[in-house]
Amino acid sequence: MRSVVLLSLLVVVQKTPVGLGLVVSGPSSARAEKRTASLTVPVELGERGYPIYIGPGLLEAGAWCSHISGRRVGVVTNEVVGPLYLSACVAALEGAGKEVVSLVLPDGEEHKSMKQLERTLDFALESKLDRASCLVALGGGVIGDLVGFAAAVYQRGVDFVQIPTTLMAMVDSSVGGKTAVNHPRGKNMIGAFYQPICVVADVSLLDTLPDREFNSGLSEVIKYGLIRDAGFFEWQEANVGALVARDPSAVAHAVEQSCRNKAAVVAEDEREAGVRATLNLGHTFGHAVETCSGYGTYLHGEAVAIGTAMAADMSRRLGWIDEALERRAVDLLRAARLPTSAPRKMTPADFLDIMAHDKKVKDGQLRLILLKGELGSCVFTPDFDTAKLQETLHAFTTTTAALE
Amino acid sequence: MRSVVLLSLLVVVQKTPVGLGLVVSGPSSARAEKRTASLTVPVELGERGYPIYIGPGLLEAGAWCSHISGRRVGVVTNEVVGPLYLSACVAALEGAGKEVVSLVLPDGEEHKSMKQLERTLDFALESKLDRASCLVALGGGVIGDLVGFAAAVYQRGVDFVQIPTTLMAMVDSSVGGKTAVNHPRGKNMIGAFYQPICVVADVSLLDTLPDREFNSGLSEVIKYGLIRDAGFFEWQEANVGALVARDPSAVAHAVEQSCRNKAAVVAEDEREAGVRATLNLGHTFGHAVETCSGYGTYLHGEAVAIGTAMAADMSRRLGWIDEALERRAVDLLRAARLPTSAPRKMTPADFLDIMAHDKKVKDGQLRLILLKGELGSCVFTPDFDTAKLQETLHAFTTTTAALE
Repeated sequence: MRSVVLLSLLVVVQKTPVGLGLVVSGPSSARAEKRTASLTVPVELGERGYPIYIGPGLLEAGAWCSHISGRRVGVVTNEVVGPLYLSACVAALEGAGKEVVSLVLPDGEEHKSMKQLERTLDFALESKLDRASCLVALGGGVIGDLVGFAAAVYQRGVDFVQIPTTLMAMVDSSVGGKTAVNHPRGKNMIGAFYQPICVVADVSLLDTLPDREFNSGLSEVIKYGLIRDAGFFEWQEANVGALVARDPSAVAHAVEQSCRNKAAVVAEDEREAGVRATLNLGHTFGHAVETCSGYGTYLHGEAVAIGTAMAADMSRRLGWIDEALERRAVDLLRAARLPTSAPRKMTPADFLDIMAHDKKVKDGQLRLILLKGELGSCVFTPDFDTAKLQETLHAFTTTTAALE
Repeated sequence: MRSVVLLSLLVVVQKTPVGLGLVVSGPSSARAEKRTASLTVPVELGERGYPIYIGPGLLEAGAWCSHISGRRVGVVTNEVVGPLYLSACVAALEGAGKEVVSLVLPDGEEHKSMKQLERTLDFALESKLDRASCLVALGGGVIGDLVGFAAAVYQRGVDFVQIPTTLMAMVDSSVGGKTAVNHPRGKNMIGAFYQPICVVADVSLLDTLPDREFNSGLSEVIKYGLIRDAGFFEWQEANVGALVARDPSAVAHAVEQSCRNKAAVVAEDEREAGVRATLNLGHTFGHAVETCSGYGTYLHGEAVAIGTAMAADMSRRLGWIDEALERRAVDLLRAARLPTSAPRKMTPADFLDIMAHDKKVKDGQLRLILLKGELGSCVFTPDFDTAKLQETLHAFTTTTAALE
């Protein structure tokens, strides 16, 4: 796999020969010699703003460590990621002169819990991390959300760094400061808006990611094109083969453009008072699929893909988009090897029951993100003909898919 | 006691005939007829800014309810305050057309815990409070800190209102957005900076507060004078008898001036990067007293009073203030019926051991708030002659007090 990483490095160097511009001193200087070209996408949030570094080899090169002002660092990862990347992360930090302690949590959505949050806080206190210390979240969305929340509340807030290790986390969950744990009564019910000091999207870490998880992340990439970036969508249509084949240059571009889109939305609406809700295209239907199937049957991105197909179908039935656009959305999802049919066992009532408890329900009224107009346009609205919602639910539960 | 309240009402009306300027509609209009003059102290924090209403009869009059935009409200109180004021609080909210649910937690610092936090979050979820709902903290510092923290993390943040029922909470803990729970390894270790939408300091609620608790709150009032408000200190010297006798006009003025001082400090330094730390005058020594004596032996304000006497003693030994100022500080604390001697059983080593774990320790170095210069001036500094610290510790542990 190393050859792929090196190829990626070269490709990105050719494309944007801009390094981090950070000098790493001390024992890590030898590593710093190795060129680590990367793109930087800024998240413009004033005093809470931060950079997203995107490129290969970033974790090991360690230039990101210079963002950490405190002396002590606590790295939190899980049982799957730890054996792969924890030692490189610790080495980079120690090379930058930091004192490092680490914690390995169990893997899986069911551990995004108050129990593991408390375990992380106990670890921080037992390790005598103080207000100037920094937490590092090394993992996918579960680790990022949980460790980010721990950082938000430990001694009323300490610095933290996001090092996403999945495509889903790189293009979506690590950016924007939504942190949380789940509660038995609902996902992400306990949390905070709390921004990291930087995000390190080291695309080399995707080398060890299984294909199904990689493709799951593509559903969020496709989302950005559909809701707000027609040019990006068209690039995906032309390059979906390279993406699925994990061409390093294509992957880096997809991560970059996704982060640029997410950063722009978050800068406009940090606390989801309005436009940020549009990032949930397909998520309300998708959440019903996840809940009804039991967590673990579908990956989050797979459920979102199904939900996106349903949102496109309903948008077309409402006359808000034409059939050609719906077709293009479904075709791209399928080309990314994502499912676009609801589970056979689900009924319209299953969907409606679960969707009634969505966090976006307001005063008892369901609000949906739907496509409307040309490619790259959407709305977040409670105003739609509910007969069309019923038609979509019937179409997806009585046939294997709406469009075959 | 009602006559005292009415007298207070008249006095405050004469002083500042400005009402809340809020119209309460619906079933509470009859109550709204009753004039509820109050002072308003603004906390200037931009989009996070809010008013502190100070005056008698505010809880019952209910004008504060118009700050709450959501339909559903969860009131959280404790077993001591609940029987006294919960029904009035619920009636005011229902009078304003709100749907109210309530939770009564056990009383005491030992219940400012993750366990009671989780209980509060479970209550919110079971009561189906949504993002637009509001939590109301009805109680002293423990309830305010815990419910504020619950509001900070419930669904990533919902509105909350502080209704302090102790003098300590009115003049200090309810203002400024510091929320937290304790951890077995330290006080306030898990929390957030999270501002309420308003603070309702209804001085009538102090009628049921025991004298010892009332006087404990005066230590924070005295603190504002010492660290930043010479005029307020001099007013206290002239009016300490009226304060201890709970003259309503004097009490309202003390609450007002304390809130103005706190609001100014918080506006300047919301997240305690600098000047806000000076609000901890006497707290580092005082925390050692609390810890060594076991929580509950001394009330927080009593321990702070001892700590303030120690800080004044050390400041004088350093030559930073003259003996006359130290004398005035100790005299005022004693006139407020507060202790100024350390517990006989404590040793200098006891103090140093506990103070070494203070949250303000940075890179292993103790930082203290000490008086320096004229009345109303202080510094927050690691730069002091440690021999003088030793002298103070010896003076307070080998005699009953430094100044007799």
